[in-house]
Amino acid sequence: MGRRLSLWRRLRVALDLCSRPAMALRQAAARALGCRRSYCLRAQGQLSGDFLESLKAVLGSPNVSTALATREQHGRDESMHRCCPPDAVVWPQDVEQVSALAAMCYSQGIPIIPFGTGTGLEGGVGAVQGGVCFNLTRMDQILELNTEDFTVSVEPGVTHKALNSYLRDSGLWFPVDPGADASLCGMAATSASGTNAVRYGTMRHNVLNLQVVLPDGRVLYTAGKGHRPRKSAAGYHLTGLFVGSEGTLGLITQATLRLHGIPEATAAAVCAFPSVRAAVDSTVQVLQAGIPIARIEFLDEVMMGACNRYSGLHCTEMPTLFLEFHGSEHSLAEQVRLTGELVQLNGGSDFTWAQEQEVRSQLWAARHNAWYAALALRPGSQGYCTDVCVPISQLPKIVVETKRDLMETGLTGPMVGHVGDGNFHCILVHDPLDTDESRQVKAFAERLARRALALGGTCTGEHGVGLGKRQLLREELGDVALATMRQIKATLDPKNLMNPGKVL
Amino acid sequence: MGRRLSLWRRLRVALDLCSRPAMALRQAAARALGCRRSYCLRAQGQLSGDFLESLKAVLGSPNVSTALATREQHGRDESMHRCCPPDAVVWPQDVEQVSALAAMCYSQGIPIIPFGTGTGLEGGVGAVQGGVCFNLTRMDQILELNTEDFTVSVEPGVTHKALNSYLRDSGLWFPVDPGADASLCGMAATSASGTNAVRYGTMRHNVLNLQVVLPDGRVLYTAGKGHRPRKSAAGYHLTGLFVGSEGTLGLITQATLRLHGIPEATAAAVCAFPSVRAAVDSTVQVLQAGIPIARIEFLDEVMMGACNRYSGLHCTEMPTLFLEFHGSEHSLAEQVRLTGELVQLNGGSDFTWAQEQEVRSQLWAARHNAWYAALALRPGSQGYCTDVCVPISQLPKIVVETKRDLMETGLTGPMVGHVGDGNFHCILVHDPLDTDESRQVKAFAERLARRALALGGTCTGEHGVGLGKRQLLREELGDVALATMRQIKATLDPKNLMNPGKVL
Repeated sequence: MGRRLSLWRRLRVALDLCSRPAMALRQAAARALGCRRSYCLRAQGQLSGDFLESLKAVLGSPNVSTALATREQHGRDESMHRCCPPDAVVWPQDVEQVSALAAMCYSQGIPIIPFGTGTGLEGGVGAVQGGVCFNLTRMDQILELNTEDFTVSVEPGVTHKALNSYLRDSGLWFPVDPGADASLCGMAATSASGTNAVRYGTMRHNVLNLQVVLPDGRVLYTAGKGHRPRKSAAGYHLTGLFVGSEGTLGLITQATLRLHGIPEATAAAVCAFPSVRAAVDSTVQVLQAGIPIARIEFLDEVMMGACNRYSGLHCTEMPTLFLEFHGSEHSLAEQVRLTGELVQLNGGSDFTWAQEQEVRSQLWAARHNAWYAALALRPGSQGYCTDVCVPISQLPKIVVETKRDLMETGLTGPMVGHVGDGNFHCILVHDPLDTDESRQVKAFAERLARRALALGGTCTGEHGVGLGKRQLLREELGDVALATMRQIKATLDPKNLMNPGKVL
Repeated sequence: MGRRLSLWRRLRVALDLCSRPAMALRQAAARALGCRRSYCLRAQGQLSGDFLESLKAVLGSPNVSTALATREQHGRDESMHRCCPPDAVVWPQDVEQVSALAAMCYSQGIPIIPFGTGTGLEGGVGAVQGGVCFNLTRMDQILELNTEDFTVSVEPGVTHKALNSYLRDSGLWFPVDPGADASLCGMAATSASGTNAVRYGTMRHNVLNLQVVLPDGRVLYTAGKGHRPRKSAAGYHLTGLFVGSEGTLGLITQATLRLHGIPEATAAAVCAFPSVRAAVDSTVQVLQAGIPIARIEFLDEVMMGACNRYSGLHCTEMPTLFLEFHGSEHSLAEQVRLTGELVQLNGGSDFTWAQEQEVRSQLWAARHNAWYAALALRPGSQGYCTDVCVPISQLPKIVVETKRDLMETGLTGPMVGHVGDGNFHCILVHDPLDTDESRQVKAFAERLARRALALGGTCTGEHGVGLGKRQLLREELGDVALATMRQIKATLDPKNLMNPGKVL
C-alpha cells in the first residue's frame, strides 16, 4: 500500500486537473501530464495478473476490463469531484457472481466499488483507494411484480424509467424520481428522493426489502428472503441501515419496492411570483393546509430563464412554482381551487395549465433538465450542486439569505428545489480552471450548509455525503453519532473495503 | 454470576407460576413457593449497598426503590411472559441523570432496562438477567412544538394521548395509536403502529430524530442535536436503527416527531359481512382503489360479540369492518361512496354511521379495548396476542386457514386487526394454570407465524420480538441477517447490558 499511496500523492496534481472538464479538455490535460500512463501503472500495481485471471474465470473475459477509457468512465459521477478510476471494472450477471467476486476481493484486501448509472452528485463512485468497480447494470431483470400487493422486486440494473415503462399497463407506478434515470438500487444506496417525495416519500419510505452482498461475499436479505409485508417490527431495521449507506456497507443486488396506484387524474401548473419569499410562503401554506400536493418545485428567476432557453419554455422569468396535483377528478378540482386561493393571497399569477400528457412531460422534462440548463448558462463550465434541507418554516429565511449571498459574491447559482420538503439546490456554475472561483464556490456551499445546520436542517437532503460532505456530516451529527456510525462501518466492513473513503 | 444463575434455575418453577394470573392468584402462588423472599435475595445479591447508595446520591432516595412490590410491577408488561423483576427501579428526572446512571451501571456491568408505561406485549421489560430498571415516566415534558413545521419534541414520559391532548388547539395531531396509552419513546423503541398506520404510517415513518443515551452513558442524537428536516441523506440512518431496537441498543430519552393536520372532517362506520373472506376482500379492494382510508379494522364474529358485551355496542355478531375516513367534506363524501360500492359488491351491510365525536369515540374505544373484551370471555384467563403481518393479497388465505385452525384445536382466539396493513391479531384466551392448553396456545401461535412466513410475511407486524419470538426471527431473517444484527448489538453494547436477552 505504501508504494500506492506515494504514487497517489504524486498523481494528485494531475488528477485534480482531470476533475470535471469537457472530454476534450480532460484528455488534453491528461495527455499533457502523462496522466493516462500513470493510471495504467497504478492498475497494474494494484491487481496482480493472477487476480485478474481469477476474475475472468468467474465472469468470462469480456466482463472484466482494465482499459483506461473504461476505468475513467467508472471513476466519476456527474459531480465536480475528481476522477478516480478503479483498477478494473467487472460486469457480474447474477448475485452468485457478485458474491464470488466480493469474496475474492475480500480475501485479497482489494476495495469494492458498486456502480449503477453513475448519475450521483457527491463523488460516490470514485475509486479513491483503487480497487474493483462492480458495474451492476447487466443485472437488469424485473423479478417479481405483485399488482395486488403493490410490490415489485428488481435487480440493480433496472432504472426507475425502465420500471415505470414496464408497469405502464398495470395501473401502478414507482414515484420516486431523482431526475436522472438512475438505477433503483443505486437510488436505494443514496437514499434518493426528488420531485414526488413531498407526497410519496423518499427511497426510505418505498423500499421493503433488499438483497445485499456483504464485503466477504455472504448474501443477506434485510427483511428475510422473499418477505414483503407493508410493515414489520422484526428486529433491527437493516433495510433502513442499508438505504443511504452509499455502497459503504455492501452491494445492493436486489430491491423490493412499494408501488403506488396511478392517479385517476393529474394536472400540472406553473405560477410566477413577485418575490422568492412569496413563492416559498405559498409552499409553506399549501402544506399547512393539508393539500396532498404531488409536486411543488421552486425555480428562481435565473433558473427559470435558463430553463426557458434550454428547454424551449416560455415562462415569465420570475420566481416560479411548478406544481402537480394527483387524485380523482373531484379531489383534483378541490386541491386546485384551494392552492389557487393561497397562491393569489401571496400575489402569485394565475396558473398556466398543462393538462395534456405531452405538455406536462415537457414541463417536467424541463425541470429535470435544470442541471443542464444551468450549465448551458456558461458553456464549458462545471456545476456544483448544493443540497441543503431545512424545516419548512425556515425556508423563506434561508432562501432569501442565500440569494443575498449569491448577489454579494457575484457567483452564478440558479436555485431549484423540492421546496415542499424544505430541500433546494443552488447549481453553482463556474470555470473549473479558475481556482479562485472554485474556492469561492466551495466556500459558498459550506456557508449555505452551515446556515442550514443553524436552522435545524441538514447539509444533504437527498444527494448523500459521498466525498465532499464528510466534515459537514461531523458538524451536523456530532462526535457520538459519528463514532457510532464508524463502529457500525468497522463491524460490518472490518477491512474497510466497501467503497472506502466515502461518507465517514 | 454463577450463583445467580443457579439461584435462577431453582426459581424457574416458581416464576413460571408468577407469569400472568390475577394479582390474588399470583400472590398466593408466590407465597406458597417462597417466591417473594427469593426475589429479595436475588436483588441483594446483584446490587451492592454501595452501588445503591451511589444511585441515591445522583437521584435522591425517593427516586430509587428496591421494594419487592415496585420491582414486581416493573418486571412484566401486559403479555403472558413471566414476571422478571429488576433488582432496583430508578426514576431519573433528566437526560443528565440517565447518562450518569447508565455510566455507573456500565462500569459495574449491571444490566439496564428502559421502562415506559409497561404496555408492551412481548415481555420487553422483564429483567431476565436482573439489573436496574430505568422508569422514564417522570421525564414528561413536551419540549418544543413547531406548528409551522408539524414537528414536536417530547421526553419519554409523554404518552400519545397526553400529546394529543396538548395539541388539541393547534390543529395538529399525532396519529400513531397502538391502543394502549403508551409512551411515545416506548412506541419508538418497539416500532409501534396501530389503527391509523394504513394512512399515516408507523413510528418508523413519524420519528425525525431521537436523543439516545448509549449503554456507557454517552448521549447521541440520531439526526444531530436540534435537527428536524423532513428528509435527510446524512450518513447511516441511525434513527431507523434505534426505532424498533426494543431498548437493546440504548435508552431513548427524547423523540422529535412528525405531526399531521387534524382533518377537516371525519366519519366512522361499521359494516358487517357474510364471511371473513368477504370482509378481507373488501379491504384489499379499498386499498387497490387508492381510497386514502384512515382506519380499516377487522373483527371476526367472536370478537364482535366480545366487544358488544364488554363495551356496550349493539353490532351484528358477524365478521365486521370498523372504518374511518378523514378529509375535506368533499373528499370524505367521495371516499365513502367508493368504499360503499366496493363493500356492497362483497355482500357487506349498509354502513352504520358514527359521525358525532362521542359515538366515534365509543366505537374506537371498543376497538382499543378488544384485548380486555377478549379476556372477559373467560374471567381469570390470560391472553396471548399473535401479531403476524402478510402481503395484503395473502390475507384472505391466512385468515381463513387460521379460523380453520382455531376450529380444529378448539382454542378461543377472537381475531382483530389492522387488515389495511395485512396485520392481524388472534387473542388466545386461555387458563394459565392449564399447562396443556398453554402448550396448545404456543403451538398454535408458532403455526400461525410460520404460515405468515411462508406467505412472505413477518411474525411481528408491530409488537416486536421481545422474549417470545427470537427463534421465529431467525427463521424469518436467516442466519446472515441475524448475524449482522448480532454484530451491531455487540459493537454498540459490547458488555450486553442494554435490556439483555431480548430480540436476539
